[in-house]
Amino acid sequence: MPQRRPVIVYENPRLEIATEIVKSATSGRKTLIIAGNCWVDYQGRASSTLEPGERIFIVKEDGSVLIHRSKGYEPVNWQPSGSVFYTTQRSGILTIRAVRRKPRESITTHFDHVHLIVVLSLVDKGEFSLYASEEDMQRAILLRPSIVEEGLKPITYEKKVEPGFIDVYGIDTKGRMAIIEIKRKTAGKEAVLQLAKYVDSVRNMVNREVRGVLVAPQLVKGAQKLLVTLGLDYRQLDPRKCAEIIRETETKKLADFY
Amino acid sequence: MPQRRPVIVYENPRLEIATEIVKSATSGRKTLIIAGNCWVDYQGRASSTLEPGERIFIVKEDGSVLIHRSKGYEPVNWQPSGSVFYTTQRSGILTIRAVRRKPRESITTHFDHVHLIVVLSLVDKGEFSLYASEEDMQRAILLRPSIVEEGLKPITYEKKVEPGFIDVYGIDTKGRMAIIEIKRKTAGKEAVLQLAKYVDSVRNMVNREVRGVLVAPQLVKGAQKLLVTLGLDYRQLDPRKCAEIIRETETKKLADFY
Repeated sequence: MPQRRPVIVYENPRLEIATEIVKSATSGRKTLIIAGNCWVDYQGRASSTLEPGERIFIVKEDGSVLIHRSKGYEPVNWQPSGSVFYTTQRSGILTIRAVRRKPRESITTHFDHVHLIVVLSLVDKGEFSLYASEEDMQRAILLRPSIVEEGLKPITYEKKVEPGFIDVYGIDTKGRMAIIEIKRKTAGKEAVLQLAKYVDSVRNMVNREVRGVLVAPQLVKGAQKLLVTLGLDYRQLDPRKCAEIIRETETKKLADFY
Repeated sequence: MPQRRPVIVYENPRLEIATEIVKSATSGRKTLIIAGNCWVDYQGRASSTLEPGERIFIVKEDGSVLIHRSKGYEPVNWQPSGSVFYTTQRSGILTIRAVRRKPRESITTHFDHVHLIVVLSLVDKGEFSLYASEEDMQRAILLRPSIVEEGLKPITYEKKVEPGFIDVYGIDTKGRMAIIEIKRKTAGKEAVLQLAKYVDSVRNMVNREVRGVLVAPQLVKGAQKLLVTLGLDYRQLDPRKCAEIIRETETKKLADFY
């Protein structure tokens, strides 16, 4: 059995050689990194062009494509997994076309100089775990209320009522007050009863219709029935989604600032 | 003057050497690619852990950080520009800590084996251009109506009325009908007058309050005054944002499907 070579490096390959390396790597479902001078066209649901410059071009084992410039955490061009690759070489230009269906889209990258090609066979079984607290979930809902329901307008957060603190409350599209109780893990009957108490308490305080919405990644058996009996709503929400919203928003805010 | 070396490659460097290369590259604001066996902790607005495995670790000139696995177009860990780097080596482990403020966050990556380090000095002056058509903008508004206004509910699109086709119309949070006219370039007075005609025409057809909203990346001088005179609204919307929304949504739909 041949020994695995995690990384094979080709420095300054001639374009004819580079073409063969790329063809072999993409057909063999290897991860591929190219550093070189290139220009790029994207056609799909929108379209884009990128003028010539030196960039890092990456193809992964699943056919996803990334083109990175030397600045910025986001790729300038990218395509998710499932691309089919067409590699050609003509008149001193190496062209790699990555084509996807559903939606139909393609990235066409032309290289007139390749500094480096790396072909990688990486072994990676490690698990990724992302955590968000109930406070993170609360912040995410305030940042993007539509993750609970479209048109919800939060008023403020952590309102003190008789039995304790309400996580989030707001006005829904029908003008009703929505009381939101957040759980970061599977919600049980206690969470439902706690929400029911808050709703009752607020009903005595305000002069409009009041609803309760339990927000959690999932429910224990029986909690659904109890919610229905008490006339309360449930909205499934994954803490990981909240973590992502917070990161996105914080990052964009900063980007807008500069 | 020394010649620029766009790419410097170190294969299987000892960890002591790797540590010095990483220190020198990050302090010299070079782009850096490491392929090796690593594990990762992220602490910030959320937190995450990634168990050991072979990955591609990238630092860019502006201090942004990306960690990519061999599958998927998204990085498993990432941090935007502005990170400060602390690189240490102890007991056979190379540790790179990337720390940002505002929001406070850090990615800590530990390597016990480095297959490859590439230090890049890329020259890239090329411009990136992203295009979206008026149809793309229409599709983006239907996919995410909140880009026009929070709580807007589109009814359908391209309603034929007396003077032509309405791009998008919907019901706003106050129950009024909103007529939306989209322009992909700077909107002039003709666009305002066209919208006014649609609004008048619809007013004669429906039994509720009707508003007009002009959506465009910007307005010509004088168009703002005309809008105010005619009682119409304006919402600034960049076609590029629409192109991004379409790509995101299409990609997520597909991801949900699998």
